[in-house]
Amino acid sequence: MSTPSNNVHEAAAQGDVTFLSSNRQLLNLQNDRGWTPLHFAARYGQTETVRFLVAEKVDTKLVNSEGKTAAKVARFWGFEEVAKILDAEQESSVTTPGTQEVATATINRGRFSENYQNFFAGGKLNRFGFLRTENAYLTRTLTSPTSRFLLLSNGRPLFDTTQPPATIAWLSYPDIADIIGNPYQEEAIPAPLGEGKDEFIIVFLGVLEENGEGPDSGPAYWVVDVSPRGSLEDKMTALEKNLSERKFDFVEPRPKAFKLETGDAAILAQARAMVDWNYRNQYCPACGRRTVSMDAGHKRTCPPDEEAPAGSVEAKKKVTPPCKSKGVQNFSYPRTDPVVIVCVVHPTEDKVLLGRQKTWPKGMYSALAGFIEAGESMEEAVRREVKEEAGIVIGNVAYHSSQPWPFPNSLMIGCLAEAVTDIIKLEDKELEEARWFTRPQVIEALSQSKLPFEAQSSALIRMPPETAIAHQLVKTWALEKEWSGAGVLAK
Amino acid sequence: MSTPSNNVHEAAAQGDVTFLSSNRQLLNLQNDRGWTPLHFAARYGQTETVRFLVAEKVDTKLVNSEGKTAAKVARFWGFEEVAKILDAEQESSVTTPGTQEVATATINRGRFSENYQNFFAGGKLNRFGFLRTENAYLTRTLTSPTSRFLLLSNGRPLFDTTQPPATIAWLSYPDIADIIGNPYQEEAIPAPLGEGKDEFIIVFLGVLEENGEGPDSGPAYWVVDVSPRGSLEDKMTALEKNLSERKFDFVEPRPKAFKLETGDAAILAQARAMVDWNYRNQYCPACGRRTVSMDAGHKRTCPPDEEAPAGSVEAKKKVTPPCKSKGVQNFSYPRTDPVVIVCVVHPTEDKVLLGRQKTWPKGMYSALAGFIEAGESMEEAVRREVKEEAGIVIGNVAYHSSQPWPFPNSLMIGCLAEAVTDIIKLEDKELEEARWFTRPQVIEALSQSKLPFEAQSSALIRMPPETAIAHQLVKTWALEKEWSGAGVLAK
Repeated sequence: MSTPSNNVHEAAAQGDVTFLSSNRQLLNLQNDRGWTPLHFAARYGQTETVRFLVAEKVDTKLVNSEGKTAAKVARFWGFEEVAKILDAEQESSVTTPGTQEVATATINRGRFSENYQNFFAGGKLNRFGFLRTENAYLTRTLTSPTSRFLLLSNGRPLFDTTQPPATIAWLSYPDIADIIGNPYQEEAIPAPLGEGKDEFIIVFLGVLEENGEGPDSGPAYWVVDVSPRGSLEDKMTALEKNLSERKFDFVEPRPKAFKLETGDAAILAQARAMVDWNYRNQYCPACGRRTVSMDAGHKRTCPPDEEAPAGSVEAKKKVTPPCKSKGVQNFSYPRTDPVVIVCVVHPTEDKVLLGRQKTWPKGMYSALAGFIEAGESMEEAVRREVKEEAGIVIGNVAYHSSQPWPFPNSLMIGCLAEAVTDIIKLEDKELEEARWFTRPQVIEALSQSKLPFEAQSSALIRMPPETAIAHQLVKTWALEKEWSGAGVLAK
Repeated sequence: MSTPSNNVHEAAAQGDVTFLSSNRQLLNLQNDRGWTPLHFAARYGQTETVRFLVAEKVDTKLVNSEGKTAAKVARFWGFEEVAKILDAEQESSVTTPGTQEVATATINRGRFSENYQNFFAGGKLNRFGFLRTENAYLTRTLTSPTSRFLLLSNGRPLFDTTQPPATIAWLSYPDIADIIGNPYQEEAIPAPLGEGKDEFIIVFLGVLEENGEGPDSGPAYWVVDVSPRGSLEDKMTALEKNLSERKFDFVEPRPKAFKLETGDAAILAQARAMVDWNYRNQYCPACGRRTVSMDAGHKRTCPPDEEAPAGSVEAKKKVTPPCKSKGVQNFSYPRTDPVVIVCVVHPTEDKVLLGRQKTWPKGMYSALAGFIEAGESMEEAVRREVKEEAGIVIGNVAYHSSQPWPFPNSLMIGCLAEAVTDIIKLEDKELEEARWFTRPQVIEALSQSKLPFEAQSSALIRMPPETAIAHQLVKTWALEKEWSGAGVLAK
C-alpha cells in the first residue's frame, strides 16, 4: 500500500534514494515535528538510506520536537544497525556541547505530547485477539513447555513469597494439567461452569513476542481460576497445599500487586478482570440460562441447548436459545466500567479540590471520582460528579491519562478540570468532606504518600500512592511546568 | 469554606472590596489565563465589586485567554445585571475597533481549552442521583402535571410525526397512568419483570431546572418502555393504536434521532441506554434468579426471596440471595462500554488512515474503532486496535472528545493518534480495506457527507455525517489550525 514518494520525508521512510538524490537541497528539512529525512529513515530501519544521508553529510545531530536524534529514534524502534552507523558518525564529527539541549528548548513540541502511563498499564503481551477462536493454535500452545500460567483463587493471585517483594509465581502446564486438561482439544462447545461439571475458568491472555513477531515468537500467557468448588474442589485444595509447600501462596492483591514490575502488573490487571467477569456471568442476564465460555475466555454465551450434552447431536444442531433474537448481545462480552477521576483546579489556579470518604484513614484525601452514566460524555460526567459531590461548577475539562483498575474491572479516566465557582457544598453526601488545598499542602502530601503507610504522619494530609492515578493527576498540577507556572501571581 | 483574600483575583471573586481598595495598583492584573479582577467579579456575580472596579476605571475591554471580556463571562454565567453594567460602561467608552481580535490572537490559550461537544451529549437535565431512592419524591413527581414521559417500544422512541422533522412526542402522566400506576407509592420492593407480573420498565431521568434550582424547579423527565408483552400486552397494543391516531408513532431511532435538537437527543440517548440495560438484565448473571428494578430504574438486584410475594413477611426479612457474598455487585449497575475511535495521522502528517467494513455502503470510510479490553489504558487500546486492524504502529495518542452512543450503550472515546509506520496490513481481517487519505480527499468527503445520503456520489469518498464523532475527529485534523498547519512541507 506504499505510494510513490511525494516529499523527502516519505522518500526517506520508504528508502527511496532516487527521490532523495534529486532533492539534495532538502535533505536537512525538518517537518513541523522537527523530523528530518534521517529521522524517518532511522525510524523505518532504512539502512541504505541512512548510509546515503550520512554520505551526503546531513546533520546527524538534529533533534526532533521530542529532543530525539535519529540515532535515538533508530534504537527506540529496534534498528540497532542504523543506530550504530549514526553513533559512529557522531563520534567522528565535532560535537558542540549543549547543542542538543538548546535545540530541544527552542523547538516547539509536536501536537502529540508524550502520553502518561499509569500503574497496571504498560502490558507487553500481544493479545492476538483473532487467535481466540483458533482451537488448533490454543490446543497446541496450551501444552507448550514455554506457556506460563497465572493462578487465581477467589480473586487472589498466586505469588512466589520466598523473598520480598513477592512476585507472580508463574506455573507451567504440567503443574495444572490434572485440573484443566485441554479444553480446546475438541471442537465441541465447552460445558457450562456449574455443579457436577468441570469448574475452572481459563483465559488466553496473549504472547510475549521475545523472538521476532507472531503467535509463536514467545511464551503464551494464561490465567486459570482454581477457586475450590464443585467436583474439582478436592483437586484444587490439594493443589493449593502443594503450592504452599513451594512457598507459592494466594495473596490479597492489595497491597502486594502494587510492588510488581510493569509487565507483570499489567498481566495481573488483565487476568483478574477477565476471571472476575467470567465468574460473575455464569448465567445469561437476558434468559437466565447457564452460559458457557467461548473465545478462549473472552465471550460467554447461552449453550445451543442446555439439556443436550456437549458434543451430542442436539448440541451440534445449535438450537437457538430464547435470548438470541434481541439484537446485539453486549452482555456476552467482558465488561469494563469507565470511571472519571478528576483533579479540580480552583478559579485562581493556586488550589485544588480533594475529598475524603468517611471510611478512609485519618487525613486521607483524594481526587473526586464516579462512574460515567448512560447518555453523558466524559466531560459531562466530570461536571455532574463534581457538582453532586462538592457543589462546585466545572467549566472545561482536560484529559490527562487513563488507568486500568482491576477491582474488579474499571477504567479510570483521569482529568484536570477548571472550577468556575469555589463555594463547597456536599450535595449528595457521598463525601465526608471536600476542601481546597494549596500547592504547598499538596506537595507535602505527595511527598509523604511515598512513605509506607505506617510511617506516615496522621497529623499531615495523606494522599494515594504513586500507583494511583489520583496521585499522578495532583502531581501533574502541583509540579509540572505547564500547570504549576500558574497561580504564581496568587501566592 | 471561603478563605481570607490572598490576592486581587480571589478578592474580586469573593467580593472583598476592602482588599481591592488597598491594592489599587493591581486592579488590571491578568493572571496566566488572562483573567483580571473584573473577570473574577463578573464570573461570581459580585455586582458591588464590579461597580467598584468600573468606578476605579479598570480596563473593561481586556479579554482573557479565551478571548472573553468580563461582560461575556458574566452573561455566560447568568449574571445579567453585571453584564448590563459592563455593557453600559463599554458603550460610554471609546472602543478601538479590532482590539478584541488582536488580543485573542496574541494571548496564548489557557491550559483548559474549549471542550468539543458531540451529538447525543449536551444534556440539560439535572439527574439528581440522590433522589433515585426517595420514594416520596418519586411518587409525588411521577403524577405531577408537569412531568414529561418519553415512550419506547422495542428500542423505538415515540415521535410526533405530524410535520418533519419528527420530534419526541412528550406524554403526560394521564396518557399512561393505566399502564404504569404508581410503582413508588409503596415502600415494597417492586415485582420482577416477568410472566404474569406487571411488565414495563420505568426510569427517572432527571429534572429540567427551568425556574431556579432544585428537584422541584421544573418538569421531571421519565422514560417508560411499553414493548407489548405479558399481561400488559393488550393495554400496550391499544395504547400504540391510540397514539398512532394522534400521529404519534414509534420510529426507528436511526436516522430520525439525528434530527433532534441537542437537549432532546441527549435525553433519548440516556433513556434508550437505560431501558436497554434494564431489558437485557432481567436475570442475575451470578445466580440466575429474576432481578427487580431499584433506584428508579438505575439498579437491578436479586429479590430478597424470589418465592415470597412482594410485601410479605418473608420478603421483609430480606433473605440474602445466593449471589450476595461475592464482593462488589457491579452487574447490578447500568453498563457503559468504552470504545476507542481514532483518526490516525501519517508520520508525515499530510494523510490520515481510514478503513471500511465490507457491509458498508460503497465508498464509505471511517475512523478505526474498537472496544477497550480488560487491563489496558485508552492509549493502549488505540495502539492495539490500529495494529490489529491495519498493521500500523502508533506512537502517542491525543484525546479529542467523547460521545455517548446509545446503540445500545457505548461511550465513544475519540482520539487522534500518531502513526510511526505507514505500511498497511489487515492483520485481523475486521476491515475490508484501510487506506491513507490526503487532506484534499478528506475535505471533499467531509463536504459530501453533509448531503443527504441519496444525494451523495458513490464515485467520491463518503464519510459519516456530522453527528458522528468520526466525522468530528477527521474534521479537526483536516481543518483546525493546530492540525492542518502541519503537513504543509509535505504538500
